[in-house]
Amino acid sequence: MKALVYGGPGSKAWTEAADPTVADPRDAIIRVDAVTICGTDLHILKGDVPEVAPGTILGHEAVGTVVDVGSGVTALSPGDRVLASCISACGTCRYCRTGSYGQCLGGGGWILGHTVNGVQAEYARLPFADLSCHRLPNTVSDEAAVLLADILPTSYEVGVLNGRVRPGDTVVVVGAGPIGLAAILTARLYSPSHVIAVDPAQARLEAAKRFGAHAGVTPDGDPLEVVRALTGGLGADVVIEAVGTPAAFELCTMLVRPGGHVANIGVHGKPAILHLEDLWIKDVTITTGLVDTSSTATLLRMLEAGQLDVSQMVTHRFPLSAFEEAYRVFGDAADTGALKVVLSR
Amino acid sequence: MKALVYGGPGSKAWTEAADPTVADPRDAIIRVDAVTICGTDLHILKGDVPEVAPGTILGHEAVGTVVDVGSGVTALSPGDRVLASCISACGTCRYCRTGSYGQCLGGGGWILGHTVNGVQAEYARLPFADLSCHRLPNTVSDEAAVLLADILPTSYEVGVLNGRVRPGDTVVVVGAGPIGLAAILTARLYSPSHVIAVDPAQARLEAAKRFGAHAGVTPDGDPLEVVRALTGGLGADVVIEAVGTPAAFELCTMLVRPGGHVANIGVHGKPAILHLEDLWIKDVTITTGLVDTSSTATLLRMLEAGQLDVSQMVTHRFPLSAFEEAYRVFGDAADTGALKVVLSR
Amino acid sequence: MKALVYGGPGSKAWTEAADPTVADPRDAIIRVDAVTICGTDLHILKGDVPEVAPGTILGHEAVGTVVDVGSGVTALSPGDRVLASCISACGTCRYCRTGSYGQCLGGGGWILGHTVNGVQAEYARLPFADLSCHRLPNTVSDEAAVLLADILPTSYEVGVLNGRVRPGDTVVVVGAGPIGLAAILTARLYSPSHVIAVDPAQARLEAAKRFGAHAGVTPDGDPLEVVRALTGGLGADVVIEAVGTPAAFELCTMLVRPGGHVANIGVHGKPAILHLEDLWIKDVTITTGLVDTSSTATLLRMLEAGQLDVSQMVTHRFPLSAFEEAYRVFGDAADTGALKVVLSR
Amino acid sequence: MKALVYGGPGSKAWTEAADPTVADPRDAIIRVDAVTICGTDLHILKGDVPEVAPGTILGHEAVGTVVDVGSGVTALSPGDRVLASCISACGTCRYCRTGSYGQCLGGGGWILGHTVNGVQAEYARLPFADLSCHRLPNTVSDEAAVLLADILPTSYEVGVLNGRVRPGDTVVVVGAGPIGLAAILTARLYSPSHVIAVDPAQARLEAAKRFGAHAGVTPDGDPLEVVRALTGGLGADVVIEAVGTPAAFELCTMLVRPGGHVANIGVHGKPAILHLEDLWIKDVTITTGLVDTSSTATLLRMLEAGQLDVSQMVTHRFPLSAFEEAYRVFGDAADTGALKVVLSR
Repeated sequence: MKALVYGGPGSKAWTEAADPTVADPRDAIIRVDAVTICGTDLHILKGDVPEVAPGTILGHEAVGTVVDVGSGVTALSPGDRVLASCISACGTCRYCRTGSYGQCLGGGGWILGHTVNGVQAEYARLPFADLSCHRLPNTVSDEAAVLLADILPTSYEVGVLNGRVRPGDTVVVVGAGPIGLAAILTARLYSPSHVIAVDPAQARLEAAKRFGAHAGVTPDGDPLEVVRALTGGLGADVVIEAVGTPAAFELCTMLVRPGGHVANIGVHGKPAILHLEDLWIKDVTITTGLVDTSSTATLLRMLEAGQLDVSQMVTHRFPLSAFEEAYRVFGDAADTGALKVVLSR
Repeated sequence: MKALVYGGPGSKAWTEAADPTVADPRDAIIRVDAVTICGTDLHILKGDVPEVAPGTILGHEAVGTVVDVGSGVTALSPGDRVLASCISACGTCRYCRTGSYGQCLGGGGWILGHTVNGVQAEYARLPFADLSCHRLPNTVSDEAAVLLADILPTSYEVGVLNGRVRPGDTVVVVGAGPIGLAAILTARLYSPSHVIAVDPAQARLEAAKRFGAHAGVTPDGDPLEVVRALTGGLGADVVIEAVGTPAAFELCTMLVRPGGHVANIGVHGKPAILHLEDLWIKDVTITTGLVDTSSTATLLRMLEAGQLDVSQMVTHRFPLSAFEEAYRVFGDAADTGALKVVLSR
Repeated sequence: MKALVYGGPGSKAWTEAADPTVADPRDAIIRVDAVTICGTDLHILKGDVPEVAPGTILGHEAVGTVVDVGSGVTALSPGDRVLASCISACGTCRYCRTGSYGQCLGGGGWILGHTVNGVQAEYARLPFADLSCHRLPNTVSDEAAVLLADILPTSYEVGVLNGRVRPGDTVVVVGAGPIGLAAILTARLYSPSHVIAVDPAQARLEAAKRFGAHAGVTPDGDPLEVVRALTGGLGADVVIEAVGTPAAFELCTMLVRPGGHVANIGVHGKPAILHLEDLWIKDVTITTGLVDTSSTATLLRMLEAGQLDVSQMVTHRFPLSAFEEAYRVFGDAADTGALKVVLSR
Repeated sequence: MKALVYGGPGSKAWTEAADPTVADPRDAIIRVDAVTICGTDLHILKGDVPEVAPGTILGHEAVGTVVDVGSGVTALSPGDRVLASCISACGTCRYCRTGSYGQCLGGGGWILGHTVNGVQAEYARLPFADLSCHRLPNTVSDEAAVLLADILPTSYEVGVLNGRVRPGDTVVVVGAGPIGLAAILTARLYSPSHVIAVDPAQARLEAAKRFGAHAGVTPDGDPLEVVRALTGGLGADVVIEAVGTPAAFELCTMLVRPGGHVANIGVHGKPAILHLEDLWIKDVTITTGLVDTSSTATLLRMLEAGQLDVSQMVTHRFPLSAFEEAYRVFGDAADTGALKVVLSR
């Protein structure tokens, strides 16, 4: 089969690779029907994730059709149309028993396209398939469903749920890339009174409004003043970090009100400064997290019920054979305006 | 009357001061029966809390007898024996309505011995007395009760409750001064399986064991290894910072397990480094806070029921007239072994 | 002044009464600008609430203008336009300290138009005014605001929050009178996937859809089957009782799924049967409650932000002088179609 | 092998039965080393649980040694010493994904000795073994461990955790049989100020005190007055039902304070009266539940740490061959004083 194979920092190719086969009784093999590219894949290509070995097939977000299952798989059968979650879960370790699949100690967690071959390929092996796949209803399209593999549950769980957004809140989302936009979209499920997006790019602030933000402001446009004006000087109830830089994180801790929450989603490569000399007295809660995909079934139910309009999220579409072009378009988002790109069989 | 008056950085005196009088209908005046000194008072004397004006009477932890009340006070009468909480609360602002008295926007919060005259005096004015005082049962001594003015609710609320200690947990308390010891004592209310104290002073580690720690380790004694050995390599469920330095805070973030809690109690004067490059993926919750004294009534009930053995907390006793000596003993804790010093009428 | 005075079971009159005056330092006197009638007032008139003494002025939901305040009132001044909450709160008892104002042990709770004179009058005395009143922004009309005195916080707190409605849930509201409709309106703040109204009256089921229900069914129309069809046979995540009869409550306990919540709002005069022989094994949570009005400030913020469309709730408008007619219209809701009636100066 | 086989209402025998074998890849076969009898087994023998087919081997609480595993079992190997939980869990259904194993929709839940053969036998088949078994540390005895198969997690999860016991609470446990005693023991983990046992038998009230109750009272001894005297007339914070009769449940709802919790553990065969005419206004939360065994790992950690003294729970010990005698002793608990009886290889 063909697959997108990582060749080491700066190198990738859509090339021939061995067909995947059942290697553990809990595996399923899928034919990939739709797949997308994550910002994390770009990090890997930059060499920021050294545990990815050259030769690994990248990708952790796909929709596919089951073609084979191991003897221990009981919830899936060949022919089933499934969502392949970015997180694999052994189901029996201490973390999996509490639904913290992202922290799986039994060989799962984020492994696809990371420590084992991923799903940017014509076929893929999905470990721990019973727990890591979700059968899809007919009414949900491949393109909508593939957004539930990573980006929507990540933004919802690590941003909105960890941040404890509640009706009437003032919520700030710092960073209006795909993750930030998904955080805006899913924060709206809790009816905040104000959602403010912060991003240096005007085009992204416009996108933020289309996804439901009430206002947008650039980091130079004095977000502190904007938030104070809305909140009687107090600060935001919830601030969601969706960038992954020290500056963005530090801005979040300035924007939050006493008693409020800062929920970090961003992938960070460097430490940040935590201004405890101000924060120690402010009753602030700061959370970090990797997605567990414990919300995937709920998000799928909401997609079915027409509650999540994800149609604006996919900006570019390609056949699988155009994977290298798709990476280029996604990687040049500032120029191409790409949010999520979807490749389909 | 006599009072301990702040004279600016480095200066204080037990000296004559004006008798307090009812200045607001919600005030009560108490005769001070027992009072203690807080580490924060030492910070003020070092000049670290510049908003304290010279001439201010220090102190925010007392037990006394009501001698006068304003027309708006309904829950107290002259003759009542009361605990004067370190936090005053207007009761009607947004924060007070949710019990977050420490964040009071209506003129309360930590004001005693800070922005208004405090309780290290023969008499004291207590603003918002209905909410800020607790009538004491006969069975609770002055000396036990005065520990509920600040140190016990602070350690319990900001350390144990914010940290969400639960039965079976492994808890690390970094810093075994009075606040850390009170955190150990109150963490035990939730039956953790292991409580580990970290402190450079062997005498404090011994004290920690008397307060209920199962083990003690110095920062140089490889606390990371001690905790990993107890937790199958995972890290602690809850880590409580009771020092107030960047190094102590950063150690806490290394000791916590994925999915665990770091609860900061320490008063910080400098920023710390937050290693988001490690923590972003670890599902960690970090909290800060000023005490609300919302737990005071519960702690008082537990004192009455004999559930909190605070007797070891008070190491030195003085008459009010020996306030300057008491400050010396408390300030030289490394030499004197002082934990809390109590001054009584 | 004129007021609506209870004369004993079956008897009431809009008649002359003594002007209210400040009787406690925490009182405020308001000129009543808008006021409404509650189903509970009808219960009183039927003689179901015997603790209401003949001669009492009824009513516990008003908007007014402050004309006088006691010496202990600090948050309000004459001229302030305020919402008078149905719950009065001493602010200092054990329950008030946790925001459970409805359970106030210090002389508050539901007292207006119950154990003290109420607000169906030209002027009214509001005890514990600092905590029990909310100053109104100019952008919120009297008519919208008066719905926040009781019905909206009741439905939201006792129905939606106690029931823990979450995004993606299937919610059933049994009873589509004003309280049930307000529960539907406020449940929508949490983005449930399905809201089903159950009521015998088709007109009310139509109203339920206008307030946001996705479907309506009569008790005879097999609500169990409707809910099972939507939930794969499991039952509803949350069922809200908004009737106050044994039959309605028992239906709720049949509609809920294993692990789900039944939130009772209805005022009950008789016991119900709890089928523990079925329920003991089902992980069901059942809650009851009187409103605390702890959500009023949040609901007010949402009104200001345009998030709560309450305009359909008021079906009839009268001058204060037409109080007896207003009672007739509200009491004959089946014929008049009345939801809430508002009387204005 | 020999096993305790149900012969229909009133009938059982320790008799020859077919050796169990792996029937599903997720099965394990254990040699039973220690096993106990549950009150539920007595209900089955009375004919109260008609879905148990004659010919079924009874029992759902055992400790054993793995002798064989299916191809899908990854966490266990022959020779492992394991606790066999009373609840089996598929691990992949909606309920299992949230740790609600008791409500498993995938073929699990309470099945052992109920809908499939149980563990009162020399050998037993354990479905879904990876999730349903816990490997035992050497320091925990068979006799202590077998109490974690059902009774301890049931009392802790369904009583203590559902009831939200907190430090300083007044807790009432109605029923001081084995389940009630285990509720008292595990409630103590949260440091309640008062634990009151209610039971008609003086011997059981004495046992309750040995397990940590502060006081005991018979139903005729005016428990309402006892609780009011301790709580300033308010009622208990948490009331745990551990009997399973309408009278016991109704007593619980009278003993609880406004804002308190009633946690039902009892297995009920009949409906109870819910006095909503009193309770509707009292902010009461009532929970029911089947154990999930989600706390088993935590309880095991606490056993290892010496935090749970379960030694008094086992009153009688037998060899497996004396199963019929053991049933007699356990069934005549009023005469024999039996709490739990343990049968060992």
